[in-house]
Amino acid sequence: MQFDLLATPQIYFGTGKVETLGNLISEFGSKALIVGSESALKVINLEKIFTNQNLEYIRFIAKGEPTIELVDRGVAAGLDYKAEVVVGVGGGSALDAGKAIAGIIKNGGSARDYMDVIGKGLKIIHPALPYIAVPTTAGTGTEVTKNAVIKSPEDGYKASIRSPLLVPKVALIDPTLTLSVPSKITASSGLDALCQLIEAYTSNKSNPVTDALALLGIQKAINSLLVAYEDGTNLNAREDMALAALLSGICLANAGLGAVHGFASPLGGSFPIPHGVVCAALLAGVVEQNILSLKPSKTSLQTLVKYAKMGELVIKKPIKYREDDYQIIIDYLKTLTQKLHTPSLSTYGLKETDFPAIIEKVKKSSSYRYNPVKLDDAALSGILRQAL
Amino acid sequence: MQFDLLATPQIYFGTGKVETLGNLISEFGSKALIVGSESALKVINLEKIFTNQNLEYIRFIAKGEPTIELVDRGVAAGLDYKAEVVVGVGGGSALDAGKAIAGIIKNGGSARDYMDVIGKGLKIIHPALPYIAVPTTAGTGTEVTKNAVIKSPEDGYKASIRSPLLVPKVALIDPTLTLSVPSKITASSGLDALCQLIEAYTSNKSNPVTDALALLGIQKAINSLLVAYEDGTNLNAREDMALAALLSGICLANAGLGAVHGFASPLGGSFPIPHGVVCAALLAGVVEQNILSLKPSKTSLQTLVKYAKMGELVIKKPIKYREDDYQIIIDYLKTLTQKLHTPSLSTYGLKETDFPAIIEKVKKSSSYRYNPVKLDDAALSGILRQAL
Repeated sequence: MQFDLLATPQIYFGTGKVETLGNLISEFGSKALIVGSESALKVINLEKIFTNQNLEYIRFIAKGEPTIELVDRGVAAGLDYKAEVVVGVGGGSALDAGKAIAGIIKNGGSARDYMDVIGKGLKIIHPALPYIAVPTTAGTGTEVTKNAVIKSPEDGYKASIRSPLLVPKVALIDPTLTLSVPSKITASSGLDALCQLIEAYTSNKSNPVTDALALLGIQKAINSLLVAYEDGTNLNAREDMALAALLSGICLANAGLGAVHGFASPLGGSFPIPHGVVCAALLAGVVEQNILSLKPSKTSLQTLVKYAKMGELVIKKPIKYREDDYQIIIDYLKTLTQKLHTPSLSTYGLKETDFPAIIEKVKKSSSYRYNPVKLDDAALSGILRQAL
Repeated sequence: MQFDLLATPQIYFGTGKVETLGNLISEFGSKALIVGSESALKVINLEKIFTNQNLEYIRFIAKGEPTIELVDRGVAAGLDYKAEVVVGVGGGSALDAGKAIAGIIKNGGSARDYMDVIGKGLKIIHPALPYIAVPTTAGTGTEVTKNAVIKSPEDGYKASIRSPLLVPKVALIDPTLTLSVPSKITASSGLDALCQLIEAYTSNKSNPVTDALALLGIQKAINSLLVAYEDGTNLNAREDMALAALLSGICLANAGLGAVHGFASPLGGSFPIPHGVVCAALLAGVVEQNILSLKPSKTSLQTLVKYAKMGELVIKKPIKYREDDYQIIIDYLKTLTQKLHTPSLSTYGLKETDFPAIIEKVKKSSSYRYNPVKLDDAALSGILRQAL
């Protein structure tokens, strides 16, 4: 048994916790750069939070997926303001923007310098400015991970800036902030979380601790994703999904992911498909192909049992781990993605002739190497075909 | 659902991990104060670890349970040496000494100032010097907690110095370091870990995350404590127990404990009983009294189910959560403590006439308030009586 567990040192979870934000900021400094999406900054009442605190702040709007240009502007704003702490408020994109800004403020240069392929691949060597992440969606779990995905629109390229020094100091998760998330985003971000949990749970880098946390997250998502989608005001379901997202971040950061996330990078680079949609469209197919490819090998029993255990959470009673039991989670995921009205990938222009180029990139991706089994080209094509 | 999760940001676990200690130290500085018990400093080959690193170090021997005097001498040694990082190596006592030294170096004064009742009850307000904890026993889980227990022999008093700022920066857990632990210590430290896991799991401050981790730890301890006791060279069993101890620390730090630990402080203050022996002697009795006191109340079903779930781990098959199933864990704990040759408390001079004074202190203790149910005096007496 060998594992590393890197974690956000302070996690606060619960209804109303956002009201403690002022106190948390003052642990680290008195001048805060608040990085947030426009909608998130409306959900959070900053004036109220900063009342009666010896704190000041400026806002920096992070619109859409963070680009090099956006991050560099944020860094300049933070330096100019002499910010002592960065607070990110929003979905995965805004939180990633804040995370990159907090890191680069203390390491210098442009976001581009820290990206591979198009940049210099520089390393983050100085601790980031203290970063407090406040998610307003339940999906990426970036509030507890060490990477930020940055986009260079002119190069048509997305890459992670990655360092243990980027892990937020505080994750402040208040499920009430997700009550107004529209159902479409609830579906795609929720499926992102569920996908991260399932891939981390079955990853070949998983360990007993991430397994226990992943299984808890999968249980919460199975119980509550559809409920939150159908009734966004259901606080219990929102709580469960916020917890599932948090756990998905802890698990992916420590156990890696799998083939779905191997597909996500080349598909997202070449087609305008949101990340959550890729997860939604491919998850059931990848699980099915993994199980088919694992079956002949006796050494893979441990992973097959994990797929059966997920089925146990679906049917809510003990199962006997027979071969039929592997099918329960596949059927569940197929039905779930239908009920969540997941768009097909052909909607975004993906065609069968694109498959070979995508598949070559999948096989080289960093996530795919943690998939529990190597899939052959026919299996990888099959996954894309059922998602068209 | 409301919870806080404070965690050591970097946890490294596995056989051979101790060889990375030099690299980990150099993340934080180049001058290390190594605080360790004499036996632990023999187990770890410091010369080898510090070879080829631009690091220097001094050793500071921490013998027995840390006293105010010992901590103050350690602080002076660290200041004099201008240490940039503190490394603790040993069992819970040596690790607590290192933790307190790292904290007080940056906060000034004497350990006494930070203790309640006999001291000034000062608060730790400055971050501790970076502290790396390397346990050589599997028990307290102090490598991931925020408190250090300090003793004042002249006052006959023990108290925790406690602050989130004391949480170690790194926990480096190499189960091979525990291979030479004598069976007696394996038993008492292992029962301490199991007790912490059971109390945190059934604590009224527990949350779904600590529950998942506690249940994993309980499973590991049930599978391996007796094995490690009977054959200390069994690496798998040592790994399981090191993991159980780590998880017990994470769980107690975030979910609190219960009545056993409520007894530990007054018993340990008045009689020369090692902490692990208190846990061993009282655990089965507290679980039994808790279950008896919980049964009449319908609202307590959730906690009773937890006791049944532990039974499931003992018999290794699904159970139906009927009333009889609560008995499985009680019987298991009684048999386990017999097999581990737990000494009775009368060995240390405890007599029935001491009960009333002890019980008054239990009811005021900080751990007892997290016990899942208030126990009446007869129940508390019964627990002590069966341990005599």
